[in-house]
Amino acid sequence: MLTAEIIAVGSELLTPFRTDTNSLWLTERLNTVGVEVKLKTIVGDDDARLEETVRDALKRSGIVVLTGGLGPTEDDITRKITARALGRRLLLDEKVLDDIKAKFLRWGRKMPEINARQAMVMEGAEVLNNPNGSAPGMYLEHEGRVVVLLPGPPREMKPMFDNLVLPRLAERAGGVRVVRRVLRVAGLGESAVDERIAPVYTQYKNPQTTILFNNTEIELHLTAQGKTEAEAELLLDGLAGQIEERLGDSIFAFRGEKMEEVVGLRLAVGGFTLATAESCTGGLIAHRLTEVPGSSTYFMEGFVTYSNEAKTRLLGVPAELIERHGAVSAEVAEAMAVGVKQRAGTDFGLSVTGIAGPGGGTEEKPVGLVYVALADDAHIEHKRLMLPGDRYLIRWRSSQFALDLLRRRLI
Amino acid sequence: MLTAEIIAVGSELLTPFRTDTNSLWLTERLNTVGVEVKLKTIVGDDDARLEETVRDALKRSGIVVLTGGLGPTEDDITRKITARALGRRLLLDEKVLDDIKAKFLRWGRKMPEINARQAMVMEGAEVLNNPNGSAPGMYLEHEGRVVVLLPGPPREMKPMFDNLVLPRLAERAGGVRVVRRVLRVAGLGESAVDERIAPVYTQYKNPQTTILFNNTEIELHLTAQGKTEAEAELLLDGLAGQIEERLGDSIFAFRGEKMEEVVGLRLAVGGFTLATAESCTGGLIAHRLTEVPGSSTYFMEGFVTYSNEAKTRLLGVPAELIERHGAVSAEVAEAMAVGVKQRAGTDFGLSVTGIAGPGGGTEEKPVGLVYVALADDAHIEHKRLMLPGDRYLIRWRSSQFALDLLRRRLI
Repeated sequence: MLTAEIIAVGSELLTPFRTDTNSLWLTERLNTVGVEVKLKTIVGDDDARLEETVRDALKRSGIVVLTGGLGPTEDDITRKITARALGRRLLLDEKVLDDIKAKFLRWGRKMPEINARQAMVMEGAEVLNNPNGSAPGMYLEHEGRVVVLLPGPPREMKPMFDNLVLPRLAERAGGVRVVRRVLRVAGLGESAVDERIAPVYTQYKNPQTTILFNNTEIELHLTAQGKTEAEAELLLDGLAGQIEERLGDSIFAFRGEKMEEVVGLRLAVGGFTLATAESCTGGLIAHRLTEVPGSSTYFMEGFVTYSNEAKTRLLGVPAELIERHGAVSAEVAEAMAVGVKQRAGTDFGLSVTGIAGPGGGTEEKPVGLVYVALADDAHIEHKRLMLPGDRYLIRWRSSQFALDLLRRRLI
Repeated sequence: MLTAEIIAVGSELLTPFRTDTNSLWLTERLNTVGVEVKLKTIVGDDDARLEETVRDALKRSGIVVLTGGLGPTEDDITRKITARALGRRLLLDEKVLDDIKAKFLRWGRKMPEINARQAMVMEGAEVLNNPNGSAPGMYLEHEGRVVVLLPGPPREMKPMFDNLVLPRLAERAGGVRVVRRVLRVAGLGESAVDERIAPVYTQYKNPQTTILFNNTEIELHLTAQGKTEAEAELLLDGLAGQIEERLGDSIFAFRGEKMEEVVGLRLAVGGFTLATAESCTGGLIAHRLTEVPGSSTYFMEGFVTYSNEAKTRLLGVPAELIERHGAVSAEVAEAMAVGVKQRAGTDFGLSVTGIAGPGGGTEEKPVGLVYVALADDAHIEHKRLMLPGDRYLIRWRSSQFALDLLRRRLI
């Protein structure tokens, strides 16, 4: 398998404020054509260290991708130092210079003198045009290795890589295609998921399965290799089908969709409408639902009712019900769901009441106790949850359980 | 200045799914004692590459910090390979072994045989106790350099570093203290901020000022060095004061606080109550406000009124007002703010109506047009915004402007 190294250049990446996100994206793209990333380096605007890093990388890896440091200032050393590490001259390319000048003209400005530096090209390198910025990239084959120089800003780097670099690397990697699929799971714990599907996925080396637990959600990443994309997809279909047999409805997404997208699509397809009544989630469910474009066709209104008085006045929850069972109770959750459904005149009413902490817990009703409830014309149901974690996690997981309750009703 | 390199070990960090967050945290901590990070490497479970990386790091940097790869399996190569790179033997430490066995006993299990590997210690290294996991760390001085081995899981790594490593590095760095302060700005653009404060901050090398634009917010990071923390804080006070003179109320946080925390604190201190009415932000403002613990004392209720009918029924916005001016208008925004204030019986009513896109825009009222309004007993005011960006950004910025409107009223 062809191997790559990624070198991110820029002193700002060595501060606590900036993380190198380009390399994650590049890794994903390189993997799709069967190139494995073996090392990543982040180096500042430091001549000696960058030169050594480039030299070392070329000793080890078939492909070396550098990002950043192609700007017009003294600090932008990638061109100069890579040329030095490769023992190649850096020459002014008149055509590139004209291009940069023309770009500045289109932006209504005269090219500042220092930008002429961006027209310096390594001997033997091919220039990669940058429609989204002034710094062109470079592609060079050097003693059997490939060296690629890309600008740092993602909106310049990504299209350049996809359009001008990836197709060549794909060819070089021998036409392997790697396809990835993300399945998302709700309502089951990590070990329960692994227990059920390990007998299946451990049988395959291709596709490969990784179970990721992202604090709030379980994701299954299936990665298949084939001679064509269709072949890889077919392998994924096979494994995904077997996993579905074992996990059933607990899988809510087969293509990485978010819960609110899945629920939204089902509401839209069915022509159903929804209203929400939230206490401890404080608007998070409404917020998640309305993040989806077009949600106004099915999401009608949402209430955030923190106080008991508001639960009574806005949702019609009888004060004596709250008095008897407490605001955090199955009875109140159901009354909230019914109340919001009736008052909004929607097909579904979804509610949450609970204790997100850090304060407000008692021995009887501790932090993490949450009730979610769902009402439609025919049914009312609730779920009692005891959620671990801090305020953020309890709120997020409550919203996920509530949406999942609705998703399952819509199946 | 003392320099450091960070090496993160683990093949999972070379996939597209996991980013190395430890090194950001370590950079921040190292900076506080005046140690500069000059290079970061991410390397897989790969003997040859790791050995070379450690050797190279020792040539260049006074401090080399490795994280990860201290687990009990074959894949956990950090101990073995670091020892090899340093030419030191790896010896079984009986005391460490007893400690690990005792830990497992406390967890109610017998120590698996493979965990004995975690008791192997480099000759000459000091063992760093790990109260939060089974893998101990190591601290070693080698030919005038410091080599530190830390476990990968953040909740094990962080306390170990802070308690057992940082004090020594601080001493080694000569007792310099570096203190950082984050100022956050609302209501001004990046270039406007820079224009106003560049004449001030460019005069100082200590404190150093970095302006960061995080897509949604402008942050000023001030970093000062002193012989003591108090000395550094004094320098920060001086510069922060001058910056405040130039930016005034546009600075909403002097210690990195979030907008919703600042607003919440002012509401709590004043004994005021708030209700919200949101259209295009879909609950985001309520969600942000209620993320702050204790928000139930001032946040009473929130409405998400997407439909015109809900604006009329729930907030009392006259239907003919919507008819005449449209739902996205100053008049409707103000009527929403007044309506929610009256119905909830709160001191303040805050409202948003706008077009977040991607659909729904017209020539007259394009995507990004947003009105925010605020009502109290004495005033009603609104702001008209034309926000760039996608749905996510338009919604986020709308919520920020709305909260900022309230913050300024509370000053």
